[in-house]
Amino acid sequence: MTIDMENMVAYVNGALDKYLPVKDNFQKNIYEAMRYSLLASGKRIRPILAFAAAEILDVPREEIKPFACAIEMIHTYSLIHDDLPAMDNDDLRRGRPTCHKQFNEALAILAGDGLLNKAFEIMSQNIKDMNGVLAMNKIAEMSGSEGMIGGQVVDLESEGHSVSGEILQHMYRCKTGALLKAPILAAVALSCGNKLTDEAKYLIHYGEIIGVAFQVKDDILDVEGNTEVLGKAVGRDVKEKKSTMVTLYGMEYCKQLLERLTAEAIADCEYFGNKGDFLKELAIYLLKRDK
Amino acid sequence: MTIDMENMVAYVNGALDKYLPVKDNFQKNIYEAMRYSLLASGKRIRPILAFAAAEILDVPREEIKPFACAIEMIHTYSLIHDDLPAMDNDDLRRGRPTCHKQFNEALAILAGDGLLNKAFEIMSQNIKDMNGVLAMNKIAEMSGSEGMIGGQVVDLESEGHSVSGEILQHMYRCKTGALLKAPILAAVALSCGNKLTDEAKYLIHYGEIIGVAFQVKDDILDVEGNTEVLGKAVGRDVKEKKSTMVTLYGMEYCKQLLERLTAEAIADCEYFGNKGDFLKELAIYLLKRDK
Repeated sequence: MTIDMENMVAYVNGALDKYLPVKDNFQKNIYEAMRYSLLASGKRIRPILAFAAAEILDVPREEIKPFACAIEMIHTYSLIHDDLPAMDNDDLRRGRPTCHKQFNEALAILAGDGLLNKAFEIMSQNIKDMNGVLAMNKIAEMSGSEGMIGGQVVDLESEGHSVSGEILQHMYRCKTGALLKAPILAAVALSCGNKLTDEAKYLIHYGEIIGVAFQVKDDILDVEGNTEVLGKAVGRDVKEKKSTMVTLYGMEYCKQLLERLTAEAIADCEYFGNKGDFLKELAIYLLKRDK
Repeated sequence: MTIDMENMVAYVNGALDKYLPVKDNFQKNIYEAMRYSLLASGKRIRPILAFAAAEILDVPREEIKPFACAIEMIHTYSLIHDDLPAMDNDDLRRGRPTCHKQFNEALAILAGDGLLNKAFEIMSQNIKDMNGVLAMNKIAEMSGSEGMIGGQVVDLESEGHSVSGEILQHMYRCKTGALLKAPILAAVALSCGNKLTDEAKYLIHYGEIIGVAFQVKDDILDVEGNTEVLGKAVGRDVKEKKSTMVTLYGMEYCKQLLERLTAEAIADCEYFGNKGDFLKELAIYLLKRDK
């Protein structure tokens, strides 16, 4: 294994802490709220994917770092806004009160805005050349209204009634898949710009597969998971009458699908030789995770 | 006058419409909500400032256009989120129901997120060189937690009790001033990067003055303005017991201050010779505006 998981999480946390330090000025409260949510114990899958892809593509860790951390900031802002009373109305996230519960709704809205904005501040501050611009653009696309935000809208509108498999797949690709693909796309852009090598193509395919698998696993955990371990409420999908892969195709099918997707992701890694070991282990880790 | 105001508004509206076209896909509703707020009849002061500064600095209109429109998108998202029930809880904006009133709260939150994200998508898509990266970075700084969002937090926390002149000035500089300075900073970055010419310095000073003047005028209009003309509720500051320049220093002082600031902005324009005529007229327009 070329990258150690626990070390990587610590490395990401250190970098996030540096990119968003404590401030003691008139608006210090927004920094407190932003840091509260950002520095809660996340899995850091997205930045870790960025570092793993960068290593395979020989992109220096320092170069991918601002993009990796920006994606985690975007992920965190989306959780803050998703948890708001007008959205999913959740009280618990990453094992702690959600941002609006800990502070208040107005500050949570602004903290979310602040994190999205900060992501682009940090990226634009650290761009060295046009490949960096492309990396940032790919991230912006993946997090936008044709990516993650688009998926959230479809999710929102699917509540309370069943949706077709086509819409559900589209929703998964956008809502979860896009921001899990973003770290790979960023690493690829930094490495070879718009001219995709075979290595880059395999990596992107891996990212796409992992993105779908991640959401299928989330659906399974919403039924079979444990609130204490997950750090968030379970059983929400059934309660809110949400269509998920589990409600649409059944638990057994989903577990088989997850196995199949994981095997496919692992097969992609063969192309990278020994360098692909970490991504293989990551795929298995994501298959087996209980949170 | 080198730039005609009415034509400029039409030009900006046309550009915004092209950057955010109608979509007919699964997430078409978010585009409808984003366009509803973005294409409402705004004054377009920020993009117009960008085009005016670009003209003085010989930056082609096509080059500043994505940045100018991105700033208007950022401005619009901040209005959508500001109007939310958890924030200012406003029903009326630009003469129409606010976004959450027209649609719903969840979609309004996502439409705001979508516009902020789209701003960075459009900028990153249109960056040609490192000066473009700098322009985007300046905009990100001005709209972030040390700029506009920071000002919104201070504003939020000042509600219901009086604040010092120092805090108030800081709030004005951030909340309104930063995003009015952003178009100038973007034009300057595109023109001369980080090496500021004297012309650039005068322009930036003009932008700073206009930013404060704009907020002072807003405070005056909240007392003396007309809801029908303004397209938003008046008398909010007194009702919400907000500290403003008017409540702190009185109406007479504020009107004199506004005159002084306008004269100072006009004096900056002398440096640009004939090319400064439009910015002079703009300063007077902002002084006299009734909406």
